[in-house]
Amino acid sequence: MIHMTDKIDPWSNEAAFDYSKLFEEFGMSEMTPEIAHKLDFYLARRGVLFAHRDLELWIKDALEGKPVALMSGIKPSSDFHLGSKLTAEELIFFQKKFGAKVFYAIADLEAYADNGLTLEQTHETAVSNLADFLALGLDEKNAYIYKQSEEKRVMNMAYIFAKRATPAMLKALYGDRNYSLYFAALTQVGDILLPQHKDFGGPKRVIVPVGVDQDPHIRFSRDIAFKEKLMLPGATYHKLMRGLKGDSKMSKRDPSSTLMLTDSQEVAKKKLMSAFSGGQSTAEEQKKKGGNPEIDMLYEVMKFHFITDDKLLHEMHDDMKSGRMLTGEYKVKWIPYALKWLEQHQKKKADLLPKARKILENAQ
Amino acid sequence: MIHMTDKIDPWSNEAAFDYSKLFEEFGMSEMTPEIAHKLDFYLARRGVLFAHRDLELWIKDALEGKPVALMSGIKPSSDFHLGSKLTAEELIFFQKKFGAKVFYAIADLEAYADNGLTLEQTHETAVSNLADFLALGLDEKNAYIYKQSEEKRVMNMAYIFAKRATPAMLKALYGDRNYSLYFAALTQVGDILLPQHKDFGGPKRVIVPVGVDQDPHIRFSRDIAFKEKLMLPGATYHKLMRGLKGDSKMSKRDPSSTLMLTDSQEVAKKKLMSAFSGGQSTAEEQKKKGGNPEIDMLYEVMKFHFITDDKLLHEMHDDMKSGRMLTGEYKVKWIPYALKWLEQHQKKKADLLPKARKILENAQ
Repeated sequence: MIHMTDKIDPWSNEAAFDYSKLFEEFGMSEMTPEIAHKLDFYLARRGVLFAHRDLELWIKDALEGKPVALMSGIKPSSDFHLGSKLTAEELIFFQKKFGAKVFYAIADLEAYADNGLTLEQTHETAVSNLADFLALGLDEKNAYIYKQSEEKRVMNMAYIFAKRATPAMLKALYGDRNYSLYFAALTQVGDILLPQHKDFGGPKRVIVPVGVDQDPHIRFSRDIAFKEKLMLPGATYHKLMRGLKGDSKMSKRDPSSTLMLTDSQEVAKKKLMSAFSGGQSTAEEQKKKGGNPEIDMLYEVMKFHFITDDKLLHEMHDDMKSGRMLTGEYKVKWIPYALKWLEQHQKKKADLLPKARKILENAQ
Repeated sequence: MIHMTDKIDPWSNEAAFDYSKLFEEFGMSEMTPEIAHKLDFYLARRGVLFAHRDLELWIKDALEGKPVALMSGIKPSSDFHLGSKLTAEELIFFQKKFGAKVFYAIADLEAYADNGLTLEQTHETAVSNLADFLALGLDEKNAYIYKQSEEKRVMNMAYIFAKRATPAMLKALYGDRNYSLYFAALTQVGDILLPQHKDFGGPKRVIVPVGVDQDPHIRFSRDIAFKEKLMLPGATYHKLMRGLKGDSKMSKRDPSSTLMLTDSQEVAKKKLMSAFSGGQSTAEEQKKKGGNPEIDMLYEVMKFHFITDDKLLHEMHDDMKSGRMLTGEYKVKWIPYALKWLEQHQKKKADLLPKARKILENAQ
């Protein structure tokens, strides 16, 4: 459990989150209907992207033609899953809509430190991850994609920022943790502030799309940015997807808790068929009372990922809610939307693998 | 004061050292007369180089033709002074005698973090430092000279080693310190283990010549090396020179406490004339009792630096000890040895500046 009155833990693997306190205690801003309307982005409309810091200032700068950037990263220890897809969709949306440059860190050192994967071993995964990102729509011409192990500016900044990080600050943000977690956190601050490095044109507004559990890194980065006279990085926050079984936060460490974008049709179908259902336990009850789409994991997957058309999503919601469909029928009707999406994505990705390899191998 | 029963503090600025406990408590080995004889090195003969770790194993490997290395570094925040010269002399001696490769880190990130000097600002100092090193006799063809900000392997290793550093280990070595000191220490471990990186041929014996106050970094490196299945780096330890006024450890931060290798004849003469004297307070007393060369800073400077001939040093010792010379005469006789050395060194260095610049600018 995350103790929200205390601190958020970015290294925890739990999804049970009391979102209400985030605004008062941690100073996030709500994603208001006005901003959601202005953005016209399905994830904002649906409350998946539910909070932010300084997004309005970022949008203002973007609309005034000032340079703005987006920053995110991935640990190349596994294939793209629904979580990495969610962040990627946000990056791509803001890149397209506002012409913002995307900074994307491939955290190969973190994969080595956490998972014991050598830089050589993670290279192939990094290529695969980047091909997924391109297939989702990243414009690589307006992006800076780098491996942690190759980007000395990030490590140099981490070294220098260490002077700014007091033990009290670290404890308030992360609790009493092992030194290596502080070290990794400080490296992330380096990543988050890289777009403001003089080599990239100096101070500018940056948005970091993250799951809400990653907020300590954002606050840490803002503290350091303030002391370094950089612009405070902003963020957008998405809700944490639950695992397909409906319980804990989905996790790379448990591949059955999420879809991998590499899953075969058969595996994906199996996972979705056995996803936690919001339907009643008997057919009679389902017909009489209707189901509960809010706890139905197939519905959540579609809402976060595979149905961008609101009308269609509404139909799915009502199929469950009204009781007009039995759970089995409902699954048979809706799962193909996900499978078809996956199939098309995998085709696009296969074509983009050589390009992804070229980007990563030339960057070195 | 350094509390030797507790821990050694590499960031302290004090020279008062109880050397006797180092062997029992911290596991260093004495530089025995046998090794000193084998080395035939004035600093070892005179007890300046008074202790080591694994030097015999290093020598054994060197004599058997196995690759061995030396490692050291400098923070480019000021010109070479007697302290940097001392380490440089040791590196050069071992390089020449055993054909060992020298790894030399220019700690420009540390200069930025500690002294607020930008990487551009420290570049000129780094060039000057390297020219001093070359003028002292470094064979740059058997050396790897790098800037911290440019050597990503070191930072990558630091990142990975952070996992190995438990809070208990850090506290035992350094006490409760600010996070940035731990970060800097871990980077130094990266430097010390760099010669064993696969790009440099993998595991090998390495000697790090240091002042005895730097031993915590050596022990930290040995701990990490053990866990990383590398060879435990060895070290040689020199005594800490006192400041010219005879009190605290000499310090870059107090330029009057040491000679800078860039000091003009006039400045150097003035510093040495006012160095703490072992002579008696009156001429009569001096004639009657003789002086005390052991506390005489001019004698210490000569012994550590400018008189390599033992017979000549003995003459100097007796000039002070016997009372046959008044303090003024003694100074007038011996100071010219230092001034002449400085003059010749500065000429050599001026010629080597372009080479130093080329080495550093090509390395980037």
